[in-house]
Amino acid sequence: ELQKKLDSLHPADVAYILEALPLEQRLDVWDLVKAERDGEILLEVSDAVRQTLIADMDSDELLAAAEQLDTDELADLAPDLPKDVLQELLESLDSRNRERLQSALSYSDDAVGGLMDFDIITIREDISLEVALRYLRRIGSLPDHTDKLFVVDRNDVLRGVLPLKRLVVNDLDSGVADVMADDAVVFHPEDKADEAAKAFERYDLVTAPVVDDNNRLVGRLTVDTVMDYIREEAESDMLSMAGLREEEDIFASVWKSVQNRWMWLAINLVTAFVASRVIGLFEGSIEKIVALAALMPIVAGIGGNSGNQTTTMIVRGLALGQIAGHNTKSLLIKETGVGLLNGLIWGSVLGILAYLLYGSIALGVVMTAAMTLNLLLAAVMGVMIPLVMTTKFNRDPAVGSSVLITAVTDSGGFFIFLGLATIFLL
Amino acid sequence: ELQKKLDSLHPADVAYILEALPLEQRLDVWDLVKAERDGEILLEVSDAVRQTLIADMDSDELLAAAEQLDTDELADLAPDLPKDVLQELLESLDSRNRERLQSALSYSDDAVGGLMDFDIITIREDISLEVALRYLRRIGSLPDHTDKLFVVDRNDVLRGVLPLKRLVVNDLDSGVADVMADDAVVFHPEDKADEAAKAFERYDLVTAPVVDDNNRLVGRLTVDTVMDYIREEAESDMLSMAGLREEEDIFASVWKSVQNRWMWLAINLVTAFVASRVIGLFEGSIEKIVALAALMPIVAGIGGNSGNQTTTMIVRGLALGQIAGHNTKSLLIKETGVGLLNGLIWGSVLGILAYLLYGSIALGVVMTAAMTLNLLLAAVMGVMIPLVMTTKFNRDPAVGSSVLITAVTDSGGFFIFLGLATIFLL
Ligand SMILES: [Mg+2]
Ligand SMILES: [Mg+2]
Ligand SMILES: [Mg+2]
Ligand SMILES: [Mg+2]
Ligand SMILES: [Mg+2]
Ligand SMILES: [Mg+2]
Ligand SMILES: [Mg+2]
Ligand SMILES: [Mg+2]
Ligand SMILES: [Mg+2]
Ligand SMILES: [Mg+2]
Ligand SMILES: [Mg+2]
Ligand SMILES: [Mg+2]
Ligand SMILES: [Mg+2]
Repeated sequence: ELQKKLDSLHPADVAYILEALPLEQRLDVWDLVKAERDGEILLEVSDAVRQTLIADMDSDELLAAAEQLDTDELADLAPDLPKDVLQELLESLDSRNRERLQSALSYSDDAVGGLMDFDIITIREDISLEVALRYLRRIGSLPDHTDKLFVVDRNDVLRGVLPLKRLVVNDLDSGVADVMADDAVVFHPEDKADEAAKAFERYDLVTAPVVDDNNRLVGRLTVDTVMDYIREEAESDMLSMAGLREEEDIFASVWKSVQNRWMWLAINLVTAFVASRVIGLFEGSIEKIVALAALMPIVAGIGGNSGNQTTTMIVRGLALGQIAGHNTKSLLIKETGVGLLNGLIWGSVLGILAYLLYGSIALGVVMTAAMTLNLLLAAVMGVMIPLVMTTKFNRDPAVGSSVLITAVTDSGGFFIFLGLATIFLL
Repeated sequence: ELQKKLDSLHPADVAYILEALPLEQRLDVWDLVKAERDGEILLEVSDAVRQTLIADMDSDELLAAAEQLDTDELADLAPDLPKDVLQELLESLDSRNRERLQSALSYSDDAVGGLMDFDIITIREDISLEVALRYLRRIGSLPDHTDKLFVVDRNDVLRGVLPLKRLVVNDLDSGVADVMADDAVVFHPEDKADEAAKAFERYDLVTAPVVDDNNRLVGRLTVDTVMDYIREEAESDMLSMAGLREEEDIFASVWKSVQNRWMWLAINLVTAFVASRVIGLFEGSIEKIVALAALMPIVAGIGGNSGNQTTTMIVRGLALGQIAGHNTKSLLIKETGVGLLNGLIWGSVLGILAYLLYGSIALGVVMTAAMTLNLLLAAVMGVMIPLVMTTKFNRDPAVGSSVLITAVTDSGGFFIFLGLATIFLL
């Protein structure tokens, strides 16, 4: 009965069910899935879950699943396949598709070449719409997402695109050349997927041609692939801001999860240790005024919070391409302004609280001063850390910015507060 | 010259330029934009930037801009318009469009009714494809993203959809009823935008009909709107995890930014104050062993880091709909396993470091035990906090989960470490 239910579901829905099941039940359900649907479902699950499913299949099952797929889909699956299966697959393909598969595999997931497919319908520009329509009727069915035909010359050089929208409203006698658009947005396989995704969002594209350096049509990019890419990028940014290395199957084994998370914990351990040594410098002062120990985490904590707000704004601005050399100065000025104001406001609140708790005006003043200085530090570093990561080190600023800014505001906060206290209170 | 350049750019590109400019320069460029393009550009900029542009326009300019727009686009702009302008706009519309605008405004941005548009081309099912094509040629041009025609009866009840893909490959003599798809994914205006976005991703939709309770066609949803929605949701999750109330113009005034950020800073101040009071409880112990002051932030910090990893996994699983009652227990078991293992590993490392620094084996053991207990606390609370926020309080778990888990691991970490130290070291 469950099997019948599964057979009637869209592959994406089966994938969804598999994702939400703990490993053992997941494999039970996977066994119930018809072999001829294995391929399309493997495409829909996340990388982490796909690995658990593939680990459960033998070579023959994998080959059978792979044979159901298009070349571009094979390319998505290939990195997760055992080497011998991949080799056999390559041998089973005709030369054109083998070439396509190898070229698709040569591009990373972050390049247009890794996302494009080969479901392209081409026509010539010197025919009439009537002839074009007759040609389409002969083909009998068009690939998913076909919103336009690609107009090429006899060397496959792209001349323009003919949206179906135009094909169906224009006079049958018109020539393709007169009706086609020749200003379509065009991509190259080596273009960054990120830039292509932005173009899809800005220009509201459904499909777009991909051409090589000689303007020859080599594939197309479709909005569903782009949407998946955007979702995955947003998720991976969110995960890496929280210090997870990569997408994790929520039911991964304990050991796998530990491996996925250890790196940031280790980095955090180092930064926490540094902060601890900063405090160690002032053990003498803490011995004399033990209140410092209770108050110092507040200065560090609010600094981290404020710095993370700034960093997140900057990471987002960088992702949207809104931040560049010409406006860095305005940003720094604005953020230090916010830091100063917040420091004075919240520093005063805390200064008063410290005074009320410990009855020392000087302690309150030190608290206010330390908060203000630490929030200024948080503002400047909150802007600079993601900027330097991007421009100087060419790294994704979403990864680790949060850990770094927290490290700076922790050690900085302890140093500023305990330092001021040592100077003015002892 | 700049003006000519601006005129030749796509409205989304002009919007992009405006977003990246500090306020003063932004308004200079905005003045150069032709009045008849104001409307389409206002639609493309973010809410925060839109407010700065609208504040710079007088009523006549706003009315002129609004008059260029479709009803669904007006609905997007309306919340930002001054009341008198909106009133005048409503009066200038014919009754059908006024009704549509009012109904669109009655839905939130998170409902399908707030995202749909009215660019629907309908046909009857009892005609042939040839007649349908003749009808389209008479219309002369189809709205953006038209990938299908909506087949309705004389009462506007949806009977099916006819993809252009099928229209162009099938025999001209076939009837619409024979060629149309009658299992299209259909939405209702009150459906959650979130669910609709998931359906677009899963079933790779380009457009989908929106119908009322009587199955009458009232609008359509398009993939470009859905893609914008997904992007905005992902961003707002990222911003709220960092404690920003809403999307912020990166060049907002200092005062506006302070207002946008004060709430989470205030909450953080309260949680930091609580943690500080927890330390206050143990001032006597710290006075005797001042090393505790230097070591306690490490226990709290790693706990926060680990708890945030768990919480982020759970928030993502909830967003993907992968987590429900039936698997909460498996998740809790797994995460406490990860917490236990991490606690033993990193706790031992730190215990050894503490021993090397301060020469006390007992201190090292307390450190290890405190780390392990705090990571267990982090694991349990990291799962429970987002779950309880969603199921019990029906709130977005992305908002504030991070602040809450950090509060728990800070106060908890201090309490566990200082408590164990007080019991075993004094
Ligand atoms: Mg199977
Ligand atoms: Mg992949
Ligand atoms: Mg395909
Ligand atoms: Mg691919
Ligand atoms: Mg768009
Ligand atoms: Mg648009
Ligand atoms: Mg990224
Ligand atoms: Mg203007
Ligand atoms: Mg709307
Ligand atoms: Mg429209
Ligand atoms: Mg999809
Ligand atoms: Mg798909
Ligand atoms: Mg959300």
